[in-house]
Amino acid sequence: MSNNEFLNKLGEQAKKASYALASLTGQQKTALLRCIASKLTDAKANIIAANQQDVEQAKANGLSEAMIDRLLLDEPRLLSVIADIDNVIGLTDPVGSEIDSRLLDNGLRLSRRRVPLGVIGVIYEARPNVTVDIAVLALKTGNAVILRGGKETLASNKALCKVIRSAMAEQGLPEDCVQLIDNPDRSLVSGLLKLDKYVDMIVPRGGQNLQRLCAEQATIPVILGGIGICHLFVDVQADLDKAVAVIENAKVQRPTVCNALDTVLVHQTNAASFIPALCQQLATKGVSFYGCAQTQAVMANNEQQIMQATDESYSTEWLSLTLGIKVVGSLEEAVAHIRQYSSGHSESILTDNIHTASEFMNAVDSAAVYVNASTRFTDGGEFGLGAEVAVSTQKLHARGPMGLEALTTYKWLAWGDYTVRG
Amino acid sequence: MSNNEFLNKLGEQAKKASYALASLTGQQKTALLRCIASKLTDAKANIIAANQQDVEQAKANGLSEAMIDRLLLDEPRLLSVIADIDNVIGLTDPVGSEIDSRLLDNGLRLSRRRVPLGVIGVIYEARPNVTVDIAVLALKTGNAVILRGGKETLASNKALCKVIRSAMAEQGLPEDCVQLIDNPDRSLVSGLLKLDKYVDMIVPRGGQNLQRLCAEQATIPVILGGIGICHLFVDVQADLDKAVAVIENAKVQRPTVCNALDTVLVHQTNAASFIPALCQQLATKGVSFYGCAQTQAVMANNEQQIMQATDESYSTEWLSLTLGIKVVGSLEEAVAHIRQYSSGHSESILTDNIHTASEFMNAVDSAAVYVNASTRFTDGGEFGLGAEVAVSTQKLHARGPMGLEALTTYKWLAWGDYTVRG
Repeated sequence: MSNNEFLNKLGEQAKKASYALASLTGQQKTALLRCIASKLTDAKANIIAANQQDVEQAKANGLSEAMIDRLLLDEPRLLSVIADIDNVIGLTDPVGSEIDSRLLDNGLRLSRRRVPLGVIGVIYEARPNVTVDIAVLALKTGNAVILRGGKETLASNKALCKVIRSAMAEQGLPEDCVQLIDNPDRSLVSGLLKLDKYVDMIVPRGGQNLQRLCAEQATIPVILGGIGICHLFVDVQADLDKAVAVIENAKVQRPTVCNALDTVLVHQTNAASFIPALCQQLATKGVSFYGCAQTQAVMANNEQQIMQATDESYSTEWLSLTLGIKVVGSLEEAVAHIRQYSSGHSESILTDNIHTASEFMNAVDSAAVYVNASTRFTDGGEFGLGAEVAVSTQKLHARGPMGLEALTTYKWLAWGDYTVRG
Repeated sequence: MSNNEFLNKLGEQAKKASYALASLTGQQKTALLRCIASKLTDAKANIIAANQQDVEQAKANGLSEAMIDRLLLDEPRLLSVIADIDNVIGLTDPVGSEIDSRLLDNGLRLSRRRVPLGVIGVIYEARPNVTVDIAVLALKTGNAVILRGGKETLASNKALCKVIRSAMAEQGLPEDCVQLIDNPDRSLVSGLLKLDKYVDMIVPRGGQNLQRLCAEQATIPVILGGIGICHLFVDVQADLDKAVAVIENAKVQRPTVCNALDTVLVHQTNAASFIPALCQQLATKGVSFYGCAQTQAVMANNEQQIMQATDESYSTEWLSLTLGIKVVGSLEEAVAHIRQYSSGHSESILTDNIHTASEFMNAVDSAAVYVNASTRFTDGGEFGLGAEVAVSTQKLHARGPMGLEALTTYKWLAWGDYTVRG
């Protein structure tokens, strides 16, 4: 079977399976998710053994410690993945709710009903927990999924999918509701991106290269996201003592994630007093700095070294204990910098002036805009969505943290009485 | 200047202009739209003269009467386009409304605010009215637009855009809020589709070839739509007399549009009585027929000719007085046919049985699903949206008739008190 035939078969099976899912009641979906949790618990030993194979292969291939830690699925982690299924069971299912029901002048009763998207393709890296997370969120909203995980976790993903599919069968549902592309051939990713006959949405969960590949090759709508070049502007009227604590939280608490801070913009009035205090505190946490010429000037007599910031450094999502610093003359200059360099993820202003806060909120067009808060809050859990499919940095369909609703669409329903258009 | 440089400049100008639009109040937008209407009225003679050039060129090039009629913009049509601006002025502007404002446990006040998308690219065919319609809808929602109309109406589009841009300037706004690509080079379309650095959404208003081109080449989110292979199922419990009238409305009232009916599915119990009556009535309106073998059999002794329906005929959006007819044995068979051949636009069932109606509505996944009504209602005006940007047949962002809200997105706003994540 050629790759194309394989993918077409996969797509056809997924679409067919999605029809069975779309008609499930909430109770049936809960029973299914409970069954998955219970079967994953029963299969713990097998899954951990499969993951051990992946870990050994990764060691043999000389992967970094950080990479190996990411792909590890030991018993505590697996139990936590299983526990998360209970959280999803507890969430309100958006499917079936009706919006805007009304009687039109033409005699039709019109409403919009939330329905599953149908088939979702998810492309992700070496994190086996994503296999379960995404399958469970998709099933909760009545969608079939085609999964393509990183080749480094193929054995783990196969073991996990096998269990999930056995739960589907036990519940009298098509196994093909959850399908894994278990051939590491990269051309299958390109093929999946063009399977628009069957797949309704692609969610790439990975770095810049994967995002660009999807944007360029997909004929299916893609939700781009997860890249955060995040800014925080310390206004002239900010409380400077509190500002250090917020910046420390945004930069240091978890530097490897997309909502971590990348660049601080400091109003020039405060530059001489604030920047040295900030750098001194962050240096104790191991942060290193790239700064503009003015930042370097005010730091000339301090021990922290400030590397020369460039266009490239301002365009970098650090994902590490590195911080860009730039002195700006005004709110407008801060906004202009953000418009030029932001990836549209999360930006924040610290100020006690309500007009400045309001102007910043209006002028900055990113998924999440904060006043007097850390950028670290951009997250489905923190925003009260209960779950997170991804963080979208594009503007269509879903923006920012995507919860269950982002896995649904709506259809218009109209009831008439043999009604014709005049 | 190369095509790429030209497009980049256009995009940069549009993005910059969009910032000015995003901060306008409702009053300012109303003043702008009034100014456009008044200037278009003043420039009537010029616009009609420009359109006359297009018409003469079209005649010289041997374009069909239908095509020439489509691109004609005479005084009554221009006045109707201008009158429509008043309708748009009267619509509620979705920009600025806030959704789901609430206080989170972590101390943040979180809400979602509707904001303009930013820059919208619209690619359309030889209909000069679209130039004004789309520009006005985009401006009403605070968006900049890049327009690419059919080359057959270039003189008309240039005249219209010149007037709109002069209104922008008079209102103290950037003229580049509305830009027209006035070079007929087709490679500019491909270039526009990849301008993701500046353009937030592409709306192709045209046939299947344009839609596929956009799906395949765009790196920007595209709203596919406007292709309707629409079905109507006459259930065993339908009122057959009323059914003829509904089908006649769906097929005959305006056969050239996307919500016109393409295929009737008839329950076999009624085939022998209903199909001849239907064909006899529709034949008086000039309809011709493609039917399945059973249709041909029940029509054997009638004067209306039934051509042999094929996979290809069932996959055709007729846009003419042609109708496909297929006899089916059950609701399930009707649904299966629709799943195979529908373009996801509009489908209808005629039945007096509430269970059958409900099952059809649940099982059919198209943008609009009707019970006991003509498919002709799928339209922004009929659905009470007040305006129509396009009819989307895809599932993300907007589905079915797209009103003003489809030209907006939201951003998350969060107010804290120097709040950090624990």
